[in-house]
Amino acid sequence: MPRSRAAATARRRPVSRPRWAAVRLLALDVDGVLTDGTIDVHSDGTESKCFSVLDGMGLKRLAALGIEVAWISGRASGATTARATELKIAHLIQDRTDKLAVLQQLARRFGLEPRQVCYMGDDDFDAPAIRWAGIGVAPAAAMPAALAVADYVPHRPAGRGAVREVCEHILGSRGQKSLP
Amino acid sequence: MPRSRAAATARRRPVSRPRWAAVRLLALDVDGVLTDGTIDVHSDGTESKCFSVLDGMGLKRLAALGIEVAWISGRASGATTARATELKIAHLIQDRTDKLAVLQQLARRFGLEPRQVCYMGDDDFDAPAIRWAGIGVAPAAAMPAALAVADYVPHRPAGRGAVREVCEHILGSRGQKSLP
Amino acid sequence: MPRSRAAATARRRPVSRPRWAAVRLLALDVDGVLTDGTIDVHSDGTESKCFSVLDGMGLKRLAALGIEVAWISGRASGATTARATELKIAHLIQDRTDKLAVLQQLARRFGLEPRQVCYMGDDDFDAPAIRWAGIGVAPAAAMPAALAVADYVPHRPAGRGAVREVCEHILGSRGQKSLP
Amino acid sequence: MPRSRAAATARRRPVSRPRWAAVRLLALDVDGVLTDGTIDVHSDGTESKCFSVLDGMGLKRLAALGIEVAWISGRASGATTARATELKIAHLIQDRTDKLAVLQQLARRFGLEPRQVCYMGDDDFDAPAIRWAGIGVAPAAAMPAALAVADYVPHRPAGRGAVREVCEHILGSRGQKSLP
Repeated sequence: MPRSRAAATARRRPVSRPRWAAVRLLALDVDGVLTDGTIDVHSDGTESKCFSVLDGMGLKRLAALGIEVAWISGRASGATTARATELKIAHLIQDRTDKLAVLQQLARRFGLEPRQVCYMGDDDFDAPAIRWAGIGVAPAAAMPAALAVADYVPHRPAGRGAVREVCEHILGSRGQKSLP
Repeated sequence: MPRSRAAATARRRPVSRPRWAAVRLLALDVDGVLTDGTIDVHSDGTESKCFSVLDGMGLKRLAALGIEVAWISGRASGATTARATELKIAHLIQDRTDKLAVLQQLARRFGLEPRQVCYMGDDDFDAPAIRWAGIGVAPAAAMPAALAVADYVPHRPAGRGAVREVCEHILGSRGQKSLP
Repeated sequence: MPRSRAAATARRRPVSRPRWAAVRLLALDVDGVLTDGTIDVHSDGTESKCFSVLDGMGLKRLAALGIEVAWISGRASGATTARATELKIAHLIQDRTDKLAVLQQLARRFGLEPRQVCYMGDDDFDAPAIRWAGIGVAPAAAMPAALAVADYVPHRPAGRGAVREVCEHILGSRGQKSLP
Repeated sequence: MPRSRAAATARRRPVSRPRWAAVRLLALDVDGVLTDGTIDVHSDGTESKCFSVLDGMGLKRLAALGIEVAWISGRASGATTARATELKIAHLIQDRTDKLAVLQQLARRFGLEPRQVCYMGDDDFDAPAIRWAGIGVAPAAAMPAALAVADYVPHRPAGRGAVREVCEHILGSRGQKSLP
């Protein structure tokens, strides 16, 4: 990792509760955000990917509150489609690396301003979307260009609860306490 | 991880040997307890999960002593069923997030008090069951709400021997020493 | 992990070069030694396991020198059979947890004394074989009973080069230097 | 790991920007370089391997600039072929452990001197190629013989962005800045 999490977060000011409370759209890159960035390639050319059950539970709760959830992936993958289907992700966009354009299109469709949008990505082509969104998030193992513009870096690693951590901030800001 | 294992365990008092010896039912959440909380999703929509051989050996030994072993999962998964079948897990309950209700039902069926029950889970909806059980366990990477009410946090990570560590405490309290 | 690698190795005296040079049979437990101890269980009940390419290369070189290589596993697994076949492992014994009995049988067959045998295992039922062998090895994440009787604890983790490290000691003791 | 990354890199002088800028051929070992060195073996004898999406993106950009990319693997694997096909890797050579001979053949074919070649490998039979290439790279978990002759050791682990880090150095030396 090019810089330690401690160092990466030290430069950042904490995102305030009202900013989390403003979020109406959570848009996520897939590889390196919902997964650890690896793909398991089989001899027959099919592939699989590791998703976190904690992340999935968080996304379900956001959707239940009426918050829009979108996945925007630079690659097309059957594994991504399968996981998105299981979680009933409303907006699944694949094979697009122009993340900012896709994100702005979604925001327009829902009539949202940047401050109502949270975007999380890990590669350099995610950086413009991370910067544009009211809350830009990059996991600790993201590329330097993504980390440099992020407002928030989760403590949990990508594919191991990083997305859930973001969900908890949004849920918590609305008084949706964790059980019990 | 939201807090280090060291910090998480520092607040806890050790669980005494007589408390471990009282356990007659060990009930386990699956994802994030028997696994590291990730699911490997394939292009065709099937999935797989990583289980620990050390954990399996511990559970077999408990069952051989007549201790009831139950798995209670919030998700239904063929991989979980396959592993439970291999280990001859007597009580497999899937697709239930009301963990405490399921746990109390099992305890009643076996005529057990809370102090005879050990429960291990990692998400916030596991917290009521963790708190109710005589010994509540959460793995180090559990959600804060689960860690907050746990009596014991294993040193080994979930899916890499955390369950075996709990089994060893129960076995050890009964004088079932590890070989040699 | 119940004790740090540093702590675990501090108690041990280094295994001398002549002791490594005496080895004529290297016998290995599979899960937790040649792998990290996890099995990937699929929805259809089949399974897979992660093996290290570095380990495989080391075992091939030992076999080329006429050193007997045996795998002794407590579980039967098609994945183990497949990997053993690829590496042309001469002696593959599965579904046996009485490791010491199997090991002594192999030693007798080859006319070897304990000092000519190196055994590596990670669970408590491996401990008698670890203790009996001239060089007993346990990976750093082994159960305490296995670590307690081990002469050597590799620096690399199981499934990530721990076996290769043992092979290098044996090869190095015979003047088989690593390239270049 | 036989030596810490810090220790391994401390002995090395940084590779200068002009040296990175001279690279016309990037040749990579596969297992332990593009992956973490493990292969996932299935019951039916097929296998799969984990590749990094970050690495793939870096290799695509190099190819787009006309830099030759070659994969040279000591093992033949359908998973490697599948991933190479997806990334349109121009030169895929498998089942060859005489890495230096293959590398020199490629260099001759493209009319390149050693200083125009970057090679990355992790095992001892990669060491001659690492030493011959103008920039020899070994991941932090490489075998000691490979680390000993490497000019550069990436901060990111193999299979988790180590190759991307090398790509970034080459791209950066040509003024190909990361976005934004």
